[in-house]
Amino acid sequence: MMIIVAEKINTSRKSIEEAVRKRDAAFIIRIAREQAEAGAHFIDVNAGTFVDQETGCLRWLVETVQSEVDLPLSLDSPDPRALSAAIRLHKGEPMINSISLEEDRFQSLLPVITSHPCHVVALCMAQTSMPTSIEERVEVGSELVKKLTGAGIPIERIYVDPLIQPVSVDTNMGLAALGAIKEIMQKFPGVNTICGLSNISFGLPERRIINRNFLSLCIFSGLSAVILDPTDKQLMTALLATEMLTGRDEYCQNYIEAYQNNRLI
Amino acid sequence: MMIIVAEKINTSRKSIEEAVRKRDAAFIIRIAREQAEAGAHFIDVNAGTFVDQETGCLRWLVETVQSEVDLPLSLDSPDPRALSAAIRLHKGEPMINSISLEEDRFQSLLPVITSHPCHVVALCMAQTSMPTSIEERVEVGSELVKKLTGAGIPIERIYVDPLIQPVSVDTNMGLAALGAIKEIMQKFPGVNTICGLSNISFGLPERRIINRNFLSLCIFSGLSAVILDPTDKQLMTALLATEMLTGRDEYCQNYIEAYQNNRLI
Repeated sequence: MMIIVAEKINTSRKSIEEAVRKRDAAFIIRIAREQAEAGAHFIDVNAGTFVDQETGCLRWLVETVQSEVDLPLSLDSPDPRALSAAIRLHKGEPMINSISLEEDRFQSLLPVITSHPCHVVALCMAQTSMPTSIEERVEVGSELVKKLTGAGIPIERIYVDPLIQPVSVDTNMGLAALGAIKEIMQKFPGVNTICGLSNISFGLPERRIINRNFLSLCIFSGLSAVILDPTDKQLMTALLATEMLTGRDEYCQNYIEAYQNNRLI
Repeated sequence: MMIIVAEKINTSRKSIEEAVRKRDAAFIIRIAREQAEAGAHFIDVNAGTFVDQETGCLRWLVETVQSEVDLPLSLDSPDPRALSAAIRLHKGEPMINSISLEEDRFQSLLPVITSHPCHVVALCMAQTSMPTSIEERVEVGSELVKKLTGAGIPIERIYVDPLIQPVSVDTNMGLAALGAIKEIMQKFPGVNTICGLSNISFGLPERRIINRNFLSLCIFSGLSAVILDPTDKQLMTALLATEMLTGRDEYCQNYIEAYQNNRLI
């Protein structure tokens, strides 16, 4: 079954930014709880907009969410220092989002993720440039899988993120990401793939429509984890219907249960 | 771009059955026009519920629709006699839905479709049984393509229908149809694939949700034609979004245009 990383606690959202600035624990806990109840397996926390105070904010978010919600978190930052500070506070086994093939980032994060049991997102980004083709993504992803497993991370704890780029920039970007998901899942049995959905629709109207149709295609391509808003009923409906259509829902049980609980829309 | 066969003029719908029984031309013409305006390339006509009077009803439907709507029809019947009567009345080049590998049906329909220029749906059904696996579908589909091209039908006019079966019966039925679509498109360059969507959701609640998610997966698998209700805005939105996501909508033009015309939902 799809592993769901709940995306809402991200300071790029105005209400979250304000809550973090004011240290409004009750608000953050409520958002975390809603996402947990909607089916999240991990709660993502991202304080990227705070620049110089990111580490402090991330630490506060970890303590605040885990004080009331019994789920592991996804610690979401490109900054190895923020991640390494947050991981030390975290109870249980977090997801680290993310490591990449960029030399500095890889080298400074590797000791952190090998010394704490955790899940790790491996972003298909190399030093030089953003990937555009399927091949470049698979190449960078493969290199990451090899380096991480070589360093002792079990393959089941690696989540390759193909790096979604907008179809508004290049209409082949959807197929490039989908092809990479499929190839990576076939090439490395046991590995996970993960992505956020919203980049795909950047620059276009009615983004939620695009995101949920893209989710269906990702699931069909073998995606095993996803960063999304589990309180978005239309998105979760697309997820459930597609899991059923692709043989991931035995006896259509989850779909029918969601129907009975009035969760399909 | 996807070839759309509009499905509403089918006497299994109560209002259509009544209109055909009363020979209510105005009603039938209105439904045909609505579907034409919503983007249909063919208007399907099916009078299957009339059993003994099917041929007469089908002939009336052909004349009625074509009296006012300038589109080719899809003549929809398992009965070669009804199809051969209807094709003679049809102006332009109809779609014949369908021929199959069942011996009687194939032999009696072949002279009809080779003597009138037409598009032909080749249903993946053989004498003995319904197909269940990808392989059986590809085998029957391939046999049909070979026989039809051998009889002089251009490959571009053949539409292989993988025969959709409900996921409620077997959760692998979605993947079986999708895999067959992909393989047939790869095996026979230039051929079309087509399917109706609604069988996939038979026996399950909220069927329209399932149908539109399945449509996305069909498009991604290479489907080139589809039998659906083009006045269903949610379904057409899924179609447009998925065509864009799979590189079939240059510069996202159709999607953006649909947005501007308030057709996305």
